[in-house]
Amino acid sequence: MPDDFEAMWSELAPLGRSAASGGYFRQPFTSVESELRSWFREQCAARELPVEADGNGNLLAWWGAGSDAVLVGSHLDSVLDGGAYDGPLGVVSSLAAIDLLRSRGVAPRRPVAVGAFAEEEGSRFGLACLGSRLASGTTTPESARELRDRDGVPLLDAMAAAGVEPSLGRADWLDRIGCFLELHVEQGRDLVDRERVVGLATEIWPHGRYRFDFTGDANHAGTTRMEDRHDPMLSFAMTALAAGKQARVSGQRATFGRVDVAPNGTNAIPSRVTAWLDARGETDESLVRLVAEIKRQGTERSGRDGTRLEVTSESVSGAVSFDPVLTAGVRSRLADRWGDVPVIPTMAGHDAGILAAAGVPTAMMFVRNPTGVSHSPEEFAEMADCLAGVEALADAIEGLVS
Amino acid sequence: MPDDFEAMWSELAPLGRSAASGGYFRQPFTSVESELRSWFREQCAARELPVEADGNGNLLAWWGAGSDAVLVGSHLDSVLDGGAYDGPLGVVSSLAAIDLLRSRGVAPRRPVAVGAFAEEEGSRFGLACLGSRLASGTTTPESARELRDRDGVPLLDAMAAAGVEPSLGRADWLDRIGCFLELHVEQGRDLVDRERVVGLATEIWPHGRYRFDFTGDANHAGTTRMEDRHDPMLSFAMTALAAGKQARVSGQRATFGRVDVAPNGTNAIPSRVTAWLDARGETDESLVRLVAEIKRQGTERSGRDGTRLEVTSESVSGAVSFDPVLTAGVRSRLADRWGDVPVIPTMAGHDAGILAAAGVPTAMMFVRNPTGVSHSPEEFAEMADCLAGVEALADAIEGLVS
Repeated sequence: MPDDFEAMWSELAPLGRSAASGGYFRQPFTSVESELRSWFREQCAARELPVEADGNGNLLAWWGAGSDAVLVGSHLDSVLDGGAYDGPLGVVSSLAAIDLLRSRGVAPRRPVAVGAFAEEEGSRFGLACLGSRLASGTTTPESARELRDRDGVPLLDAMAAAGVEPSLGRADWLDRIGCFLELHVEQGRDLVDRERVVGLATEIWPHGRYRFDFTGDANHAGTTRMEDRHDPMLSFAMTALAAGKQARVSGQRATFGRVDVAPNGTNAIPSRVTAWLDARGETDESLVRLVAEIKRQGTERSGRDGTRLEVTSESVSGAVSFDPVLTAGVRSRLADRWGDVPVIPTMAGHDAGILAAAGVPTAMMFVRNPTGVSHSPEEFAEMADCLAGVEALADAIEGLVS
Repeated sequence: MPDDFEAMWSELAPLGRSAASGGYFRQPFTSVESELRSWFREQCAARELPVEADGNGNLLAWWGAGSDAVLVGSHLDSVLDGGAYDGPLGVVSSLAAIDLLRSRGVAPRRPVAVGAFAEEEGSRFGLACLGSRLASGTTTPESARELRDRDGVPLLDAMAAAGVEPSLGRADWLDRIGCFLELHVEQGRDLVDRERVVGLATEIWPHGRYRFDFTGDANHAGTTRMEDRHDPMLSFAMTALAAGKQARVSGQRATFGRVDVAPNGTNAIPSRVTAWLDARGETDESLVRLVAEIKRQGTERSGRDGTRLEVTSESVSGAVSFDPVLTAGVRSRLADRWGDVPVIPTMAGHDAGILAAAGVPTAMMFVRNPTGVSHSPEEFAEMADCLAGVEALADAIEGLVS
């Protein structure tokens, strides 16, 4: 008898948890993430679900074989100091849903696959949804081979060190998938405000990551007159404030959450400040306008400071609409037990967005998050809501495989 | 025959040099700095100058024994990605000056000591002039034992790992010193503007290091509405701009050159931004006013952002006036060969400032810096000026020991 949801959740709880913050550090191809992968393989073995590794770091467990499969699942990795739910909730709920379907005596007419995608957060190699991008051909193996982590370790070396045999590129499992339904903790308060436990997604906002390199002239912090400086920290500071203000007035999102300073010494004016902008817009056009305006203000300030600003797009994902037919079908199937399930947009990127853009009919299901907080140790969902999510996911799968 | 100045300079040139930037990384008690210390010991051995280690990481080489010694020298460590001259120029010039005095046949009536002080820059343990502070009793052994580097390595462990037997506390060599004359590359353009090769210092501006901890709430960079955020990066950005502006309008100095962000992920609003303020003021009162105003503006912005700001003074050094009698004596001795030597203030801290505050009659001599740049790979002095500095230092010492 495989573990039930609560037992699985308890097993995962200590893996990669920081005692200091209570947050999780589950970066891909680290020893912690290897433990998570082993745990996934063991759970699948206990359920007699054969596991397929695709050479991009993704794992798929199969209930039944053949084509036109219903893919469920999510990812196991976290952001730096992230929460327990973003990713793992979808994987654990999928395994528990299979248990539930089996206990209901469901004999699926289509195969069901549970996916655990690699580096969804991009927290180590900087490119979010790396596993699903490679498997779907959205990112080429050539460009992925250039990726390095903050310590300069190349992707392929990191994979090999974690015992993952790399064979990057479009995965043939893609041809055996009929649709993808990703369950995820909600990253907002829509459901709690509506007093609903589960919801479905309409679309993903366009979003991107942009590297801002501000370069100036290192010099002594004491002896250099203020008017003689070319201090890139000041250019960055103004740009960060401009980003916050532009996003606020336009109802969009802009964040500088990562900064790297050189030489980063207290008594030296920096020679370089590199900061990464995470930006999200309601439409592709509004995202372009937002980033262009932030860049314009940063460049103007750099001109005044005598510093230089170079902006590089590291990844940009266009707007994604989930499959209306699949979503309507799931919604109608859920109506009996769950009533009129809300359909809401998401500003976060997901593997579901990558596969949807690659042509897989895709839908997303959300489980209520009482605070709306995610990417933080504070991320949370009530156990009762998680269990309800398992049931809703099982209902949805049953509708698709019956 | 010991090496001459140019040979010594060439030997030091490759130690700790970054091929990427051309700058130097000579942090205390690293393998590179151990090489510098060994090099100093070898040079002293070749000159038959016995070397005394004081248990605080400082080395003193003695030409003659007894009390009322003339101390010269400086330090060998650098800031992160610093220049070749700040520190080593004073040590190498002191050894070369002894060679020159010997070749002149000078038989000193007082001992001459060459000091190489530890962690002058505070680039590893955060407390500038750590070696001279400990030796003079300005910093207690108890508080120094609490110091850790960025990787959490305690000072004592770092010293022991570098083969330096730690025995922290006031050094007895202090009682054998009659005066201290530190030669240093100028960190400004006073001498180049006056077309002079050497100068003397009047005073050191009061200065300090202050840690600004901005704490907020980590959350998802995409899903969290701008108006729901408590983003410490914005509070820091406004504070950095305020610091630059306040220093500019008051003719003082304020720099945020070092920043540490947690969790430092692209798609997460930070939970904490820690930034170190380096501030220098014309008087003790104006420094206090400058820091208080920066803190006030930072606190006000934090209030608006829903973040919290805590400010901790890590080290504050009051105004230091160099000894007017010693300085006048050196100036008059130099007049024959060097004319009317300019006397200028410095905004940088030095071991000379620590020993002056501890009661040692102290003077500083500067060598021209054509660009005024320091704490940077661009730091430079012409070889002809360095050699002139050696001669001026020898002249000054000769005046003091005759």
